[in-house]
Amino acid sequence: MDLAPRRVESASPRIDAVMGEIRRRIAARLLTPGAKLPSVRALAKALTVSTSTVVEAYERLVAEGAIRSRPGSGFYVASQLAPLSLAEIGPKLDRQVDPFWVSRLALEGGQGFAMPGCGWLPPSWMPQEALRKALRTLSRANADVLTDYGTPLGLLPLRQLLARRMAESGLVVRADQILLVDSGTQAIDMICRFLLEPGQAVLVDDPCYFNFHALLRAHRVKVIGVPYTADGPDVALFEQALEEHRPRLYITNSAIHNPTGAVLSPVNAHRLLMLSERAGLTIIEDDIFADFEISKAPRLAAFDALNRVIQIGSFSKALSASARCGYIVTRKEWLDPLVDMKIASNFTGSQMSEALVLEVLKDGSYRRHMEALKARLSKARASLIPTLRQLGIEPWIEPQAGLFLWCRLPLGGDAADLARHALAENMVLAPGNVFSQSDTASSFMRFNVSQCDHPQFADILERAIKLARR
Amino acid sequence: MDLAPRRVESASPRIDAVMGEIRRRIAARLLTPGAKLPSVRALAKALTVSTSTVVEAYERLVAEGAIRSRPGSGFYVASQLAPLSLAEIGPKLDRQVDPFWVSRLALEGGQGFAMPGCGWLPPSWMPQEALRKALRTLSRANADVLTDYGTPLGLLPLRQLLARRMAESGLVVRADQILLVDSGTQAIDMICRFLLEPGQAVLVDDPCYFNFHALLRAHRVKVIGVPYTADGPDVALFEQALEEHRPRLYITNSAIHNPTGAVLSPVNAHRLLMLSERAGLTIIEDDIFADFEISKAPRLAAFDALNRVIQIGSFSKALSASARCGYIVTRKEWLDPLVDMKIASNFTGSQMSEALVLEVLKDGSYRRHMEALKARLSKARASLIPTLRQLGIEPWIEPQAGLFLWCRLPLGGDAADLARHALAENMVLAPGNVFSQSDTASSFMRFNVSQCDHPQFADILERAIKLARR
Repeated sequence: MDLAPRRVESASPRIDAVMGEIRRRIAARLLTPGAKLPSVRALAKALTVSTSTVVEAYERLVAEGAIRSRPGSGFYVASQLAPLSLAEIGPKLDRQVDPFWVSRLALEGGQGFAMPGCGWLPPSWMPQEALRKALRTLSRANADVLTDYGTPLGLLPLRQLLARRMAESGLVVRADQILLVDSGTQAIDMICRFLLEPGQAVLVDDPCYFNFHALLRAHRVKVIGVPYTADGPDVALFEQALEEHRPRLYITNSAIHNPTGAVLSPVNAHRLLMLSERAGLTIIEDDIFADFEISKAPRLAAFDALNRVIQIGSFSKALSASARCGYIVTRKEWLDPLVDMKIASNFTGSQMSEALVLEVLKDGSYRRHMEALKARLSKARASLIPTLRQLGIEPWIEPQAGLFLWCRLPLGGDAADLARHALAENMVLAPGNVFSQSDTASSFMRFNVSQCDHPQFADILERAIKLARR
Repeated sequence: MDLAPRRVESASPRIDAVMGEIRRRIAARLLTPGAKLPSVRALAKALTVSTSTVVEAYERLVAEGAIRSRPGSGFYVASQLAPLSLAEIGPKLDRQVDPFWVSRLALEGGQGFAMPGCGWLPPSWMPQEALRKALRTLSRANADVLTDYGTPLGLLPLRQLLARRMAESGLVVRADQILLVDSGTQAIDMICRFLLEPGQAVLVDDPCYFNFHALLRAHRVKVIGVPYTADGPDVALFEQALEEHRPRLYITNSAIHNPTGAVLSPVNAHRLLMLSERAGLTIIEDDIFADFEISKAPRLAAFDALNRVIQIGSFSKALSASARCGYIVTRKEWLDPLVDMKIASNFTGSQMSEALVLEVLKDGSYRRHMEALKARLSKARASLIPTLRQLGIEPWIEPQAGLFLWCRLPLGGDAADLARHALAENMVLAPGNVFSQSDTASSFMRFNVSQCDHPQFADILERAIKLARR
C-alpha cells in the first residue's frame, strides 16, 4: 500500500530530511505544541539547505496538520497533536465463520498471508503496464475529466464500447441502457434497493458467491438456496422453490459460476427463463468473470433480450479492483429510477475510474494480456489438481476456465475448522459453508488456482487437514 | 468528457487511419458481418503502412468488438453489430422540480449550459496541476495500489493524515476511527442504512442540501425540517421537533451551511448537543465545505467528542469530484458494523482514488491552491452581490466563505418558474423549494458565486424574472 518506494519524483530527499528533522524535534518535545518554529532563513542556514527547500518542507508539514502557519508571523507547532494511530486491525482469528469471514480476511490479511481462499488474482497477474500507461494518458486529459462529476449514466464512450462488446456475445443493447456504477456489488445492491421489499424471498445458487448472502442480509429478505449442478441450478428444485416461496428475484452467474466454475447449459437457460416468465421472476445475471471465458457460454440476458433479466458486471477481476467501476444493463424503463437511486445514494460514479477503464479496454494490449492470462490460469489449474489429489482433495468438476476449483475434502473434519487451523499458519482458505445457504458444504473448499503457489501451500494444508480431523 | 484531444501519445495517427478505413468499409457494407478482413500484409501494402500498424489497428478493433480474430485463420467482421447509440438524454425541461431536478440538470447539462445553480466549482478553479502530478506519481506506484482491492477501512496513510488534520480543528480521533467510502453522499447513506428504520423521523435544516431529501426518501423515513437561522437551526423549534416527532437522526452542515452559507454559533452548538443528549438523538455533521473556511467555525463532532455525532466529509468540492473519496468518523464501536455494510453493499472503496487524494493532500501546493481559491471566491462573491441587487435580488446574509449566496427574489413570481424560464435559455438555476422540506422557499434562489460569470448571466436572469412575474 505504501507509495513511498515509487515516490522518488514527487518529493526531494532534502525536503524529506527537513520534514524529518522537524518531526523529530516535535516528537522529542524539543518543540512543544504551540511553539514557534525556527525561521525559514535560520533553519536553512542550520541545515545547509536552500530556503525554498525549508519553505516547501514547512508547507507539507502544514498540509499534514503537524504545524500551522500564521501569516506574517511564521510557523508554529500544531496546538493539538493527533494521538499516534494503532496498527491496522489484523485478521480476526476468533470471528465466526460467516459470509464476511473470507472477505475480511482476504482484504485485511495483507502481504504476510497465503491467499488460496481469496476471490481475485495476485497483483502480478493483473495488466499493470496497461494501467500505468492509462494513468499517464489520464494525467494529460482535459480538466473536467480530472475534476468534475461524471454524468448520471457514466462516461458515454465507455458505455458505447461495452455495448459493442455485449453485441459480440449476442446481447444487443444501446449505450443508454447501460448504467455505470462503482462495482458489481453496488450494481446488485442498487437493483435490490429498487426491486425488493424486506421479507420478500430471493433465490440464490447453493453454493453461490458468499457476498450475495451478506448483501441480501442487509436487505432483510428471505434467502432461498437452489442446489447448483454441473450445468446450472437444479431446474426441478428451482421450479419447486418458485411455487413454495414466490420469490421476487434470482441472483446467479451464468458463465464460470462462483464458486464451482460450472457453466449454465443452453437447455437449462431456456428452462429457467420459461419458469421465470410464468412466475414473474426477475433475474440478476452477474457476468463478472466474462473476460475469463475460453468458449462463450450462453447468457440469460441474451436469450431473454433483457426482458426480465438484468445483467451486471465489473472490471475488478480482470482489469483492476483498485479503480472501482461496474455496470448495470437493463430495459430502458428501469434505468431512470436506477439513476435516481444512484444520485440519492452516491451522487455519481468516478469519472476518472471510468476513463481509466476505457483507456485500458480500447488498448489492444488488454486482449493480448487476457489471452496470456487464460493460458496461465489453465496451466496453474492443471498443476494444482494433482497436488490437491495427493492430499485426498477432489475437484467437484474440472472447470475449463476461471479462477476457482470447488473441491471435496477427504472424509472427516469440517472445512471451517480446517480453515481456522490454516489461518493459524497465515493461510486464508474459503470453507464451503460460507458459500452455502443451507450449510450443506462443510466438506467443500474453494481454491483460487492463481493463489496456491505458496511454497508451504501443501504442507500447511496437510497439517490443517490432520488437525481438523482430530 | 472526450479524452481525444489529449490522447496524442496513447494512439498513433497511422493506427487511427487504418481503424477508420476498416470502420468505413464496415459502415458502407463493403465488409458485411462475418466477412473476412484483408490479410495484415495485404492491407499494409494497400495503405502503405507497416504490418505492425495494421496488427495494432486490428487488435484495437477486436477490443472494440467491431471485428473478431480466429487464431490461425485471420480477422472477421463481428457477426452482430451493436446498434448505434442515441445521443445522451439531454436535460428534461418538463421534469417536475423535485430534489433531483437540479442534480440531474447540473450533471447532464454539459458544456453548453451556464450553471449558477450547480453546487460545485468549474474545472478551471480546481487543483488540476496537483492532480496531474499525482496521476503521474500513481503511474509509478506499486502494482497492488493499481490493481488490488483496498482494505476495508481504506488507505491507512490517508486516514492518518485526515486524523492529523482533524486534530487541528479540535477533533481528536485515531486513524482506526475513520472509514473511507466513495463519497460524502455514500457516507450518509451507509449511516442511514445502519441507524434508520423506515417510518422513523429524521430532522434536517430548512433549507438544506436538496440531496438530503432525495437520500432520505430512499430510506422511507419521515423528514422534518427545522427552520435555519443566520447562526444555526432555530433552537426552540429544534426542541419542539424533538418532542413532537422523537427523531432518530439529525443531518446538518455546521460550517458553511448549504445553501445559506451561514455558520453554526458556539452557543447554538452547545444547546443542540444538550438537547440531543436528552432526546437520545444521533447527529450526522456533513463537513464537506471544511477546506473553504476562512475562520474556523465550531464543530459539533469536536464539542461532542464523537459521542453522538458522526462526522462525514469528502474531497469532491475542493480537490476532485472525479476521483470519488469520502469518509466517516465515528466512535470505534460503530465502525465495525459500518465496515460490514460497506463490504456487503460495495465490497471496498477505490484504493486508487484514495492514493490520489493522499498524494494531493500531502503536497504543499494544495494548501497554496486553497488559499488562492478562497480569495478568488471572496472576490467573485463581492462582485456578484451588486449585480444581483440591481435585479432586485437580495442576499439573505453575506457569507464570509464558501460557494453560495442564498438570495431572496424580487416580489412576485415563483423561483421554480424563474428556473424553468432560465433553463429555456440554457441556464441552470437552483430554486429555493428544492432545498425546503416545507416548500416555504419559493421566493429564494441559491447562486454559486464561481458559476455566475457567463456574459449573458444578468440578461437571462432579468428576462426570466420578468416572465416568472407574469
